[in-house]
Amino acid sequence: MDRQDMLTTHPFDDDKLREECGIFGVSGASTASAMAALGLHALQHRGQEAAGITSWDGRAFHTHRAMGHVAGNFDNDEVIRALPGEVACGHVRYSTTGETSLRNVQPLYADLASGGFAVAHNGNISNAMKLRRELVRRGSIFQSTSDTEVIIHLVATSNYRTLLDRFIDALKQVEGAYSLICMTPEGMIACRDPLGIRPLVMGRLGDAVLFASETVAFDVVGAEFVRSVDPGELIVVPHGAGADEIRTHRPFGEVSARPCIFEHVYFSRPDSIVDGSSVYSVRKEIGAQLALENPVDADYVIPVPDSGVPAAIGYAQQSGIPFELGIIRSHYIGRTFIQPGDKVRHLGVKLKHNANRALIDGKRIVLIDDSIVRGTTSLKIVQMMREAGAKEVHMRIASPPTRHSCFYGVDTPERAKLLAHKLNIPGMRDFIQADSLAFLSIDGLYKALGEAKRADIRPQYCDACFTGDYPTSLTDQDEAEVRDQLELLSERVV
Amino acid sequence: MDRQDMLTTHPFDDDKLREECGIFGVSGASTASAMAALGLHALQHRGQEAAGITSWDGRAFHTHRAMGHVAGNFDNDEVIRALPGEVACGHVRYSTTGETSLRNVQPLYADLASGGFAVAHNGNISNAMKLRRELVRRGSIFQSTSDTEVIIHLVATSNYRTLLDRFIDALKQVEGAYSLICMTPEGMIACRDPLGIRPLVMGRLGDAVLFASETVAFDVVGAEFVRSVDPGELIVVPHGAGADEIRTHRPFGEVSARPCIFEHVYFSRPDSIVDGSSVYSVRKEIGAQLALENPVDADYVIPVPDSGVPAAIGYAQQSGIPFELGIIRSHYIGRTFIQPGDKVRHLGVKLKHNANRALIDGKRIVLIDDSIVRGTTSLKIVQMMREAGAKEVHMRIASPPTRHSCFYGVDTPERAKLLAHKLNIPGMRDFIQADSLAFLSIDGLYKALGEAKRADIRPQYCDACFTGDYPTSLTDQDEAEVRDQLELLSERVV
Amino acid sequence: MDRQDMLTTHPFDDDKLREECGIFGVSGASTASAMAALGLHALQHRGQEAAGITSWDGRAFHTHRAMGHVAGNFDNDEVIRALPGEVACGHVRYSTTGETSLRNVQPLYADLASGGFAVAHNGNISNAMKLRRELVRRGSIFQSTSDTEVIIHLVATSNYRTLLDRFIDALKQVEGAYSLICMTPEGMIACRDPLGIRPLVMGRLGDAVLFASETVAFDVVGAEFVRSVDPGELIVVPHGAGADEIRTHRPFGEVSARPCIFEHVYFSRPDSIVDGSSVYSVRKEIGAQLALENPVDADYVIPVPDSGVPAAIGYAQQSGIPFELGIIRSHYIGRTFIQPGDKVRHLGVKLKHNANRALIDGKRIVLIDDSIVRGTTSLKIVQMMREAGAKEVHMRIASPPTRHSCFYGVDTPERAKLLAHKLNIPGMRDFIQADSLAFLSIDGLYKALGEAKRADIRPQYCDACFTGDYPTSLTDQDEAEVRDQLELLSERVV
Amino acid sequence: MDRQDMLTTHPFDDDKLREECGIFGVSGASTASAMAALGLHALQHRGQEAAGITSWDGRAFHTHRAMGHVAGNFDNDEVIRALPGEVACGHVRYSTTGETSLRNVQPLYADLASGGFAVAHNGNISNAMKLRRELVRRGSIFQSTSDTEVIIHLVATSNYRTLLDRFIDALKQVEGAYSLICMTPEGMIACRDPLGIRPLVMGRLGDAVLFASETVAFDVVGAEFVRSVDPGELIVVPHGAGADEIRTHRPFGEVSARPCIFEHVYFSRPDSIVDGSSVYSVRKEIGAQLALENPVDADYVIPVPDSGVPAAIGYAQQSGIPFELGIIRSHYIGRTFIQPGDKVRHLGVKLKHNANRALIDGKRIVLIDDSIVRGTTSLKIVQMMREAGAKEVHMRIASPPTRHSCFYGVDTPERAKLLAHKLNIPGMRDFIQADSLAFLSIDGLYKALGEAKRADIRPQYCDACFTGDYPTSLTDQDEAEVRDQLELLSERVV
Repeated sequence: MDRQDMLTTHPFDDDKLREECGIFGVSGASTASAMAALGLHALQHRGQEAAGITSWDGRAFHTHRAMGHVAGNFDNDEVIRALPGEVACGHVRYSTTGETSLRNVQPLYADLASGGFAVAHNGNISNAMKLRRELVRRGSIFQSTSDTEVIIHLVATSNYRTLLDRFIDALKQVEGAYSLICMTPEGMIACRDPLGIRPLVMGRLGDAVLFASETVAFDVVGAEFVRSVDPGELIVVPHGAGADEIRTHRPFGEVSARPCIFEHVYFSRPDSIVDGSSVYSVRKEIGAQLALENPVDADYVIPVPDSGVPAAIGYAQQSGIPFELGIIRSHYIGRTFIQPGDKVRHLGVKLKHNANRALIDGKRIVLIDDSIVRGTTSLKIVQMMREAGAKEVHMRIASPPTRHSCFYGVDTPERAKLLAHKLNIPGMRDFIQADSLAFLSIDGLYKALGEAKRADIRPQYCDACFTGDYPTSLTDQDEAEVRDQLELLSERVV
Repeated sequence: MDRQDMLTTHPFDDDKLREECGIFGVSGASTASAMAALGLHALQHRGQEAAGITSWDGRAFHTHRAMGHVAGNFDNDEVIRALPGEVACGHVRYSTTGETSLRNVQPLYADLASGGFAVAHNGNISNAMKLRRELVRRGSIFQSTSDTEVIIHLVATSNYRTLLDRFIDALKQVEGAYSLICMTPEGMIACRDPLGIRPLVMGRLGDAVLFASETVAFDVVGAEFVRSVDPGELIVVPHGAGADEIRTHRPFGEVSARPCIFEHVYFSRPDSIVDGSSVYSVRKEIGAQLALENPVDADYVIPVPDSGVPAAIGYAQQSGIPFELGIIRSHYIGRTFIQPGDKVRHLGVKLKHNANRALIDGKRIVLIDDSIVRGTTSLKIVQMMREAGAKEVHMRIASPPTRHSCFYGVDTPERAKLLAHKLNIPGMRDFIQADSLAFLSIDGLYKALGEAKRADIRPQYCDACFTGDYPTSLTDQDEAEVRDQLELLSERVV
Repeated sequence: MDRQDMLTTHPFDDDKLREECGIFGVSGASTASAMAALGLHALQHRGQEAAGITSWDGRAFHTHRAMGHVAGNFDNDEVIRALPGEVACGHVRYSTTGETSLRNVQPLYADLASGGFAVAHNGNISNAMKLRRELVRRGSIFQSTSDTEVIIHLVATSNYRTLLDRFIDALKQVEGAYSLICMTPEGMIACRDPLGIRPLVMGRLGDAVLFASETVAFDVVGAEFVRSVDPGELIVVPHGAGADEIRTHRPFGEVSARPCIFEHVYFSRPDSIVDGSSVYSVRKEIGAQLALENPVDADYVIPVPDSGVPAAIGYAQQSGIPFELGIIRSHYIGRTFIQPGDKVRHLGVKLKHNANRALIDGKRIVLIDDSIVRGTTSLKIVQMMREAGAKEVHMRIASPPTRHSCFYGVDTPERAKLLAHKLNIPGMRDFIQADSLAFLSIDGLYKALGEAKRADIRPQYCDACFTGDYPTSLTDQDEAEVRDQLELLSERVV
Repeated sequence: MDRQDMLTTHPFDDDKLREECGIFGVSGASTASAMAALGLHALQHRGQEAAGITSWDGRAFHTHRAMGHVAGNFDNDEVIRALPGEVACGHVRYSTTGETSLRNVQPLYADLASGGFAVAHNGNISNAMKLRRELVRRGSIFQSTSDTEVIIHLVATSNYRTLLDRFIDALKQVEGAYSLICMTPEGMIACRDPLGIRPLVMGRLGDAVLFASETVAFDVVGAEFVRSVDPGELIVVPHGAGADEIRTHRPFGEVSARPCIFEHVYFSRPDSIVDGSSVYSVRKEIGAQLALENPVDADYVIPVPDSGVPAAIGYAQQSGIPFELGIIRSHYIGRTFIQPGDKVRHLGVKLKHNANRALIDGKRIVLIDDSIVRGTTSLKIVQMMREAGAKEVHMRIASPPTRHSCFYGVDTPERAKLLAHKLNIPGMRDFIQADSLAFLSIDGLYKALGEAKRADIRPQYCDACFTGDYPTSLTDQDEAEVRDQLELLSERVV
């Protein structure tokens, strides 16, 4: 049977931008690795392909890495017991740079002259290829194809004396987006790139200090959210130190922060607080803005589950049109079924979504979704609504058109595959076969975030996926052939 | 580490009644087993412990059974190719009678003198133990501890001549609840017990005839819902017959039907049509009745996800209080994590649910849930709401108090563990620490289903879990010691 | 890649007759199942496809069955702990009747009215198909395709009252070969068919009573060999009884025994005592007889390892020609390798055997093997010797030509594939490309066993594979089409 | 159950010196990796803990590494197909330096500035720890704890220009024993340390060039043995070159070779040719020398199987005492069984060996074994012989007493555990409870190898395990604490 006959679904659609990574660290907790497992589980939506945890027990580092989810790999006694100590960090990942094989799964680890060094990274180094070539030329041997490993070799070969100076020396050579949690025999280091593109928050539980990509990771372990790590901030937590002995450094010059705006649109969980805002409230406000900007006369507001739900509630409350579950989402998804002949249309989407036919039949509906990437899923959902008898189908999207790729650690299709790059809005409407289609404006999005409008000179967020306005240089992207070269050189481990 | 330190969650809570089984059959489709796999996947919520499919290729029966979900076991090419033929039936199960080991996974199969005989059963035979003892005394050898196998031995040893007569002879000896899909070398047989306690629907896709526990299984394969199989009806679909050649039999005397009312409250998917009603609409109507019967002054209506959502929408629309997502449900659950010390409270519930703290803080909320079984989860959710800052927590339950066990194929705790058996409503309110607690009345439930009220002489539904009014005799239950005896005799396969 | 490009070897050659089963039982030992695991491991040469152990702990039976070897399945603590009790029996098997799937792996088990009944069987019931059809006609439902299950159903449906009488009633209806070890809630039963075709020995270890196919199973657990179970003897060991309370029964009329002669030629381990004779001594004597009957002028006597070694030592000592290792056998075999192009000749045999080239080159050699079945391996070994430089290759076989199939539980190819059925001895010599070929005479074989000659009227052994003189009727064989019919009826479990 | 109740056996006894590695390489064969799999399978006796193969397809390197045997990991189509190309090298290993985890399994691989570099190593670098510390100090990051990785980093950081010069530069810095097969994008490199301590042979099959630890790896693929690689020789086979274009280098000054003498005593397979001698012939000659030096009056010569067999044949032929199989070895070993109570004595040895009781009883026997390491197995075998009724048990050992550890890649116990270090010969005799015990003299061993005697000034072999005369300096051994330090620094991957 041909591969094309196979149908696949994922908990997060192939037709979504995929967040690349989630990171978690804890210092000073008696069962640090059990806490890390829970924290990573709460961050699972940020990366489902692999997970890893490294712990430090005062004498040695212990690591377990595995392909797949946190649950199933880190929920058994034996694994957690094999990760002893009061300090641990962990990582969940999608592959953005480097193929997904076990050697690329983080935390990465190296034995440096100063002792062990473990690192978990969310983001993407946009000059990693160039730095790698230079390092290899000088005799460094890479064990992964991950961009993150560049940082480690820069630390290993730095001419500075203390580990902290070597680490800062390394960071000053890299460009791009990074939130990092590192472990050394002396302590834990957490830092965020100067623009703060990727999120990182700090928490506390008794004497323990925690770091995570999102606050939901603190909720699951019962920790308290303290504050966001600042863009360009580097925090050192010495082992055995009380929460009060942590030291903060700001090694970079003053730069305006530009955190990723898409965290608010889709990536983060609605129950997280991102850079000071409740994600759920922002999304509801986005829905309200969308209703104001793009009203429509209809019987029901229907969310595309689950990511469209908060915006749909906001849209319904603003417009007064009733919010209803017109699409039911299955809890049992994630694999590939054999298609039984050509009679079954749109099977992939049906494994995940089913029309609530009794509700929809004969009605005019507004569908609310967070974004359109390739548009293939939107098309299938509109068709499913029509087959269920919908009289009119109006699509409202809770963000501006996604027209540009991300090079900061988000798995976007190449630009040519983005529907909004290929078509204007009427063209997109025709493609997805909706009766009408409208997007939130870029200023509407900033309004929902509490800004008056986008500051065009010095924008408050990184919104490159909507605007193409990339806040850093993109060295490797400009030398794109390097990537292929790397792939040829590297061993394929089978 | 002790077992008590382990924390477990399930996609459907331990503190819910669990549906026992889903069944699916298709005759006359070129890739019957692929269709069965999809149909069972859509019925996965009815049983997650094991699944099986049997196909008939015109010469031989082929069966694959596996512990675990349909996805992961029946979504690969090799398995489906090893199940050839145009006729197939399948089963997903929880164990209600008989431990869950592979030999109890259905479809069950036997070589009779008339040829092979496969059966998939939803329900529970309430005199199975008694019949089994008699059969063993006469020389029958059982291969499973499943109640379903009794039916097969009754067929094998019947004195009637044709298989159909032998089958009817067998059914007349059993009491309890059963929806059955059987396969023989001549055709497929679908039937429902005289009271129609468990659901069974018929569908059509081109020339193919389909049977399933719920209509969602037809949606996923693109089939059309034709009608419910009637209580006491037995339908024969000869192999190779067109959809028009199916024959219907009614071997039992006229009895008033009493389908399970809990299918509408919780078991069935909201997008299914059960005995003529849209489950989603009924649940919204239940929510509206609940608002009428038990109003409360509050800021938000919050569903306990996901089963409480439709009733919460109904409650919100009726009461005018805004519907909000105050509890966020994780998509990544289903395993057991190690608890990191005693600092983490309510971890089990937190793995699945997290409070939307920014929304809840300082607010008066109405929580809507479908039922209370043991009450342990309700307690934890109320506590979670309070820890998130809720000012008042009012619990409203979308069904009457669950005071009695089910003996018709639903996995209920023994009666002594049901909170509503142990405590009156004020006692329950104190137990779950809510500010107020109210249940839907039994007549309110019947009203939501379109009845004026419960017909106390000849009730329209089986509502024994609420009323204790069991519609059949419970032979084995009255001889409860038999079960232990069975367990002693049987081989433990390890 | 086509299956024909795959090369496979087995510890025991595809080109050997394969013993079908080994059985082991122990009553009265504190860790009966651990003892059974060891005993079966020592009997592993009698069957490598599957293994099983059933224990009785005074209240319940516990069984574990697995495809594959004893080591790897029964050498872990958890499995053995899940098989508690002082009584256990076990089985290793090749499939002779019935495909090899888990449901055919023994011990078989059934819940009878008298309680549980487990049985491990070495042999083959030659009228099993006929009995099965009759039982199914009367309503019995079979769970396996194994001939052994017939015995259980005959017991279940017998009209006698006590289990022992029912068991004897069953045995009187079966024909063929059987050594059986059974377990009931009352005790262990061991018995051997009236002709004693398959072996069975009794041992003792302190108060524990043991039964096994071969004495090596006693050696490994440190037990003492007491005696062979007599042909037609049935021994009952009540649970908890001292070794002195065992009771013996002889339910069959007096018949001359005819134990399998091939046990001495190949099946049994050389360190076993079979029906009173040391297998090693008999094989050496066979080698000596072979040297007397078929002398040859040569430089070295070379065994085909490992089964030809004892006869080769006997041949060398009798002839005065030096015994040398001209073929080295690898210890690492048992799988399938990909053939690297067509340059590698005879790869299958080379994975297992390699010529000791430095020894062989330029020499005249006598190869000693135990038997020739299809002849394909003999051909490859002769060719390997020639490629290694052997000047002359003389093949001497330590048994008469194998011209007939076995129907008593040995996996023989159908008769048409036996080289000795197709060709006379000169033809066989040409086929295997040897310079000369000779077999031991049938009387020579009997002489090696201490007899004057074969008693043609009432032969001392079953030698049907050499002579075609079958000691029982072969009902199923005479109705061979039945087997196909069975295959069509039965469910294929995938 | 305590670990001490578990009993384990290995195909090669725990009480043997264990060879550490086998290596194989082939260049110019259309299915190089399939050939490597076969070659490694034939070398499996040299290392059973892990195996790996790297191939080069003209564009990229492909590697598969696995814990366990070659069979089971490299005998399936998919794995071999994932290793395309005409050049491949492979490795089987015991862990001698570095724990056995997947990252230590060879071939090791690195991306150098010159392209990929893969290496398979047999031997041990005796100054690896010291070199590693220096490299780490300069910024190199190690991915394994294997001594072999030092070579790669020395190449990566060398100041020479061509890869060949860098490689020679690296080799000149290491001390110890190494036979290496390397692959680069230009070609294959095979070399042997200046003393030739570990073996390496060259073969040919058509145009393909092969390298292996032993000639048996050529036999299995049908290749021709060409010659041994000389001590200190480095051979380059450019990709695509004919067999005639290979180039040989001799970068080291002239040194007398000292190949390992124990290869002849035990490590190599009897059908291999090692440094010009047939291993089988040498072992028979060892047996003959042993009979001349240490005669005894006895009934039978009994080999301890399988390693003692050739020497036993030599002893028997020289002494005229009959060679007999008094110990039968099981083919089914390799796991751990649960000990059933304390009644079973010497279970470990019995799983592997069983006395041929019928032969031994009442006889005086000479046991022939290759060596005594800890002596524990010898004791058990002597006891087993006595329990089987042996009247006298005389032990003769086919090598001198093993008094010193090996630091050249052989897994020897620390010196304090060697029986011959702790006791003199009468003490050893008492320990193993034999009636007499004698060893071959060191000069007798050299005689069996065709030398007049050991040349004490410049010995012909490395015989340090017998004499303590180590041919290289042992830098790391003199700084033994370094090893512990390494263990503390390195990450434990779980």
